[in-house]
Amino acid sequence: MARRTDVAELVAQALAGQPRAVARLISLVEDASPLLREVMAALAPHTGQAYVVGLTGPPGVGKSTSTSALVSAYRVLGKRVGVLAVDPSSPFSGGALLGDRIRMQDHATDPDVFIRSMASRGHLGGLAWATPQALRVLDAAGCDVVIVETVGVGQSEVEVASAADTTVVLLAPGMGDGIQAAKAGILEIGDVYVVNKADRDGAQTTARELNHMLSLGPSRDPDSWRPPILKTVASRGEGLDEVVEALEKHRAWMAANGTLDVRRQRRVRAEVEAIALAALRDRMAGPTGGRRADALAGRVADGSLDPYAAADELIAGLLRDPGADTAP
Amino acid sequence: MARRTDVAELVAQALAGQPRAVARLISLVEDASPLLREVMAALAPHTGQAYVVGLTGPPGVGKSTSTSALVSAYRVLGKRVGVLAVDPSSPFSGGALLGDRIRMQDHATDPDVFIRSMASRGHLGGLAWATPQALRVLDAAGCDVVIVETVGVGQSEVEVASAADTTVVLLAPGMGDGIQAAKAGILEIGDVYVVNKADRDGAQTTARELNHMLSLGPSRDPDSWRPPILKTVASRGEGLDEVVEALEKHRAWMAANGTLDVRRQRRVRAEVEAIALAALRDRMAGPTGGRRADALAGRVADGSLDPYAAADELIAGLLRDPGADTAP
Repeated sequence: MARRTDVAELVAQALAGQPRAVARLISLVEDASPLLREVMAALAPHTGQAYVVGLTGPPGVGKSTSTSALVSAYRVLGKRVGVLAVDPSSPFSGGALLGDRIRMQDHATDPDVFIRSMASRGHLGGLAWATPQALRVLDAAGCDVVIVETVGVGQSEVEVASAADTTVVLLAPGMGDGIQAAKAGILEIGDVYVVNKADRDGAQTTARELNHMLSLGPSRDPDSWRPPILKTVASRGEGLDEVVEALEKHRAWMAANGTLDVRRQRRVRAEVEAIALAALRDRMAGPTGGRRADALAGRVADGSLDPYAAADELIAGLLRDPGADTAP
Repeated sequence: MARRTDVAELVAQALAGQPRAVARLISLVEDASPLLREVMAALAPHTGQAYVVGLTGPPGVGKSTSTSALVSAYRVLGKRVGVLAVDPSSPFSGGALLGDRIRMQDHATDPDVFIRSMASRGHLGGLAWATPQALRVLDAAGCDVVIVETVGVGQSEVEVASAADTTVVLLAPGMGDGIQAAKAGILEIGDVYVVNKADRDGAQTTARELNHMLSLGPSRDPDSWRPPILKTVASRGEGLDEVVEALEKHRAWMAANGTLDVRRQRRVRAEVEAIALAALRDRMAGPTGGRRADALAGRVADGSLDPYAAADELIAGLLRDPGADTAP
């Protein structure tokens, strides 16, 4: 009973934009709390307003600094801004990344800026499960814009980036061969490209190479979006107004032709599927499912059953006793 | 018909240890081929013999060189050896890793060594789904030992490492702060620790620090396994016999007290669950499931349904029409 009241109160406070309540709700997401079901039901009518910007790029291009500068640029326009800094390489490097976050303290006392580092705890589908729910909290808390910052070096980041309305890919001059490899994947996901540290040697070359690589992609019809390539010096706040301008232009373009709805629908579907898969995984790992899985694994281990046939039996069992493990 | 014959023939050739057939079966795993069901059914009675060694560590410690040297050490003992080099950070860095693999060419002409780089294609649960099935192919092909080499920098690698009978954690002297962070996670998964590049300054310090950190872990009862810390110079093949000795000791210890069976049962259970989850995910994404998911996502997007309630409905639909999307 006390629990129910807590959730209702917490949700009311988060909807009113109280940072501590927002932080606690995101903690519930990180912890995969059983209270989330109630939280998300209460938040649902208040979501769908935030514009979600994904910001990704290889390590060392200045993502945190750029995020912070982008927050400043949006604050000048009076927007309430949320930041989710997602670190898929955790549990190993969480500490280091947090140290990196020092520049964010520029916004530490601004009540209209919510900043949260989030790590996958390695359960329940990880970030694909947690990120959209944390976004939902920031959305319901009245954020006009939410920036999802990820390290762009792997599959999970691509998935996270695909959860955004608009994806900004950040590069920097002179990053060596590593970036060449990274670019291949990164070229497919950017709506806006930014060459940060544009005051350094090689910025022009990087922008030119990028332009060249983008031009090699599939040919675009005249109505389609052509990703702009911008230059910034985020540490001095230079060029960020142009980034905001490009983002707003992309958003307007998407809203006009229906792409925005398509992307949001896709994001919500991925969120629902991640929750459903996590629930099915829980059911498999629960007492009944677990006993069944162990028995089947024993038969596979001794060679009398193959793993596909065992998987069929595992699923058939779930279907036979759908609620067996979910009862309290 | 022709297809059935191909699979049967391919399996027969792989069981006879023909490298090209082994390679093609692992390609089927990478491609998540529908033929796998038939392949795994045919392989099942011939698996369960291989000793699986996981080898992990941060980038730059000499994993490829160590794997190659370990292969040599096992070859001296007359063992048939398989290597699965797993790269979870693909699609972005696959190319680079392959370049790294040059030392493996020492074994390129040895008919009793199977080497395969494997990347997650980002579907069907990725490496958690593919790795155990690729292992199964190498096992059935008569490998006495299979070495699974992974980059130790994230959650998925920990999962892959947990699929091994014995996990070797590789470190090197003077790797800076990055390793300090990595160590925290790595300390929980190693059965054998190896400080490679032991001819370099700082090797003794690294070994001592490691010993200290391991001693801070949960206290062990006298019967439990105490992970040894060994030193190697893999590029010159030094110290590898001692690594093989430690591995055989660990295997014997596990076999004597039942740990080996427990780990294999756990590995098989994870394999079966990964296959079942991938099948459920496929079913969700199939025509019937997809229409249902889109309709639910629309209601969540407009705020009239929360994502948990939508996930419940999605699962209920799967359970109602279990076979709807799996019929040909």
